[in-house]
Amino acid sequence: MSETQKGFEQGDLQDQRIGKDYKSDLGVTHTHTVTLPGFRTQSGFEFDELELSYQTLGTLSHERDNAILVCHALSGDAHVAGISPKNRRPGWWDYHVGPGKAIDTDKFFVICSNVLGGCSGSTGPGTLNPRTGKPYGMAFPPVTIRDMVAAQARLMDHLGIPRLFAAIGGSMGGMQGLVWAVDYPNRIHCCVPIATCMAHSAMQIAFNEVGRQAIVSDPNWKNGAYEARSRPEHGLAVARMVGHVTYLSEFSMREKFGRALQDEAKAKRTYRAFFPEFFKVESYLHYQGDSFVGRFDPNSYLYITKALDTFDLLDNRLPAEVLKAVKARFFVVSFESDWLYPPAQSRELVKTLKRSNAVVTYLNLDTRYGHDSFLIDNPAFSRAVHNFFDSEYRRLRSQLKKTTQALRL
Amino acid sequence: MSETQKGFEQGDLQDQRIGKDYKSDLGVTHTHTVTLPGFRTQSGFEFDELELSYQTLGTLSHERDNAILVCHALSGDAHVAGISPKNRRPGWWDYHVGPGKAIDTDKFFVICSNVLGGCSGSTGPGTLNPRTGKPYGMAFPPVTIRDMVAAQARLMDHLGIPRLFAAIGGSMGGMQGLVWAVDYPNRIHCCVPIATCMAHSAMQIAFNEVGRQAIVSDPNWKNGAYEARSRPEHGLAVARMVGHVTYLSEFSMREKFGRALQDEAKAKRTYRAFFPEFFKVESYLHYQGDSFVGRFDPNSYLYITKALDTFDLLDNRLPAEVLKAVKARFFVVSFESDWLYPPAQSRELVKTLKRSNAVVTYLNLDTRYGHDSFLIDNPAFSRAVHNFFDSEYRRLRSQLKKTTQALRL
Repeated sequence: MSETQKGFEQGDLQDQRIGKDYKSDLGVTHTHTVTLPGFRTQSGFEFDELELSYQTLGTLSHERDNAILVCHALSGDAHVAGISPKNRRPGWWDYHVGPGKAIDTDKFFVICSNVLGGCSGSTGPGTLNPRTGKPYGMAFPPVTIRDMVAAQARLMDHLGIPRLFAAIGGSMGGMQGLVWAVDYPNRIHCCVPIATCMAHSAMQIAFNEVGRQAIVSDPNWKNGAYEARSRPEHGLAVARMVGHVTYLSEFSMREKFGRALQDEAKAKRTYRAFFPEFFKVESYLHYQGDSFVGRFDPNSYLYITKALDTFDLLDNRLPAEVLKAVKARFFVVSFESDWLYPPAQSRELVKTLKRSNAVVTYLNLDTRYGHDSFLIDNPAFSRAVHNFFDSEYRRLRSQLKKTTQALRL
Repeated sequence: MSETQKGFEQGDLQDQRIGKDYKSDLGVTHTHTVTLPGFRTQSGFEFDELELSYQTLGTLSHERDNAILVCHALSGDAHVAGISPKNRRPGWWDYHVGPGKAIDTDKFFVICSNVLGGCSGSTGPGTLNPRTGKPYGMAFPPVTIRDMVAAQARLMDHLGIPRLFAAIGGSMGGMQGLVWAVDYPNRIHCCVPIATCMAHSAMQIAFNEVGRQAIVSDPNWKNGAYEARSRPEHGLAVARMVGHVTYLSEFSMREKFGRALQDEAKAKRTYRAFFPEFFKVESYLHYQGDSFVGRFDPNSYLYITKALDTFDLLDNRLPAEVLKAVKARFFVVSFESDWLYPPAQSRELVKTLKRSNAVVTYLNLDTRYGHDSFLIDNPAFSRAVHNFFDSEYRRLRSQLKKTTQALRL
């Protein structure tokens, strides 16, 4: 599938996501792995040990009160910012994480870890099953957003962080932030859920299911027991393509591609030969599909999308009951053109939190780049997050001062 | 793939599309096939002969002035209304075509033919190539909406219809109607394009390309040279699933499915065993994918979606130039919740037609069922179309009377 990579010139199309040539203020950043003993999933599966891949940036304060956990979305990983020594690629959120940026590494200690069930260094379906010596495949237990967060909490223990200043993330990352606020009310000061929801709608589930069906219909999938040299790459590429369409907006696709045709010489995909007209947007999708295949595990795609679909913050319980212990202060962000996680879902979240007496600030940004808006360079978004963290951190510090003074008196 | 058909009970989910148990006022209706000699496509391919499958309902008037051509969308066929003697299924537009209905078969002579490139009786990639004795497969020439309409015009010649009273259709059917108005200005009195556009946007192309990639990535596709017993059915099913998600609205999916789970016993799809929660919307998509596979040809899906994507009513020419000869009177209809062919595209069409001095009535219906709105039972839509045809036919008749009187004087 690699031949079409030539067909797409990322620069030509002004991809708003971070590209290869991007320069990072952080220079080279490293990803570490920790092995944590014993972990039980919500479904009751017992891991003897769990590996978690993670990155830290900045310095933990003496008071250990400045830790921000960045939670990644479906296709993210621990490499959140700076340049990877392995492939020279910048981290997926370098636009917003770094010195003086929205998440200011001069001020905060930033942690990002690959989720449980992932395929970028953390335990997932591609990990060797100690009982068989082969990858778990579909013998891996179903994982939930709550499981991912429980694993992160274990990582915080390991790093000696008793309480997060904040958890922040977009899409699936936002769900993780919400679970932190609900499941660990005493371990988080504030929470920034971005372009997310309390539970997937039928349409969100449907799009994920199309992707899953593309994977499991690929004969190479073999009930998940594929070998490294014959993975269901075609299916995974199609899954990524349908995902990508939903991440963009009508506007961004019109602006990027419109009905422009791809240069003949660059359009090489198999069936291209049969149809004379080949659009740039088709080439773009092929590129996105093909490049994803090189870095993602098809089974992880199944497990993580299922975690997304089964996530339900309230789980059929009364909001007042679920949220009664919540102490975090919230900054909820949505994007007007995001039709995959529409602002209505964020407003629903805000309403639910407020009814349970949580302190919530809500910002709906009028950006035109769809669900991808949280991944791209976006000064208004950056400024808003920066200001929220700034004022919340002052607040936390002044509280601390008061408490210390009170204790001294 | 048939085992999951059990998993989905159409009645349970109140499918708004016409189901098996539906009763038709027309009783059994038949589909015919005509062989037309010599046909040249826009791309220059010469067919020695062309087969077209078609259905007619009602009676052609003595003046031959009451013919309405119904044009079908991507997955439609010639069987527009009444019950098929083959499979007892009602036609795809039985809600709107019949005695006293929107398209009144007591008054009008209704024709519907399967498009060129289709797979339901008309010449398409599944037809035997006389040069090889095997199906054309990808040796079939690319077809355009204009080719489809040119073939329909030949069918009108065959049926002895010098001029259509109207062409009507939704989605791809609307495009065909527009081509009739532009390419055959003297052969059509009025045109009803529904939920359609003058040219696909990047997003519309992108969704189609995901479907095409699902098909061509299926190893059974074999560059289109598959055999009947090993067609790329998995790929076609995935293509249909992604299509189906785009045909529905957020509202209709929430109303139909929400986050309801499928009954355990009915959920049998392979990877179901690995994840305990299986949603009704997933089962619905599987059902749609599986049932489509039984009635559609994967190569036809490629050809027809490409015809949709490459359609451009204006073809980079000035609207005034393209539309100067147009005489048809238009009734343009869109649906507020249709996000695949959004009302903005219909408004653009209306604006363009009006600027070229065409007579246009526009109706945007506030239905909540997405792009599917034109296929479902919809009294407001039905009434509007009925009234338009009623008043236009009176107008045509009174004109005819005046002309006849003038000639007598």
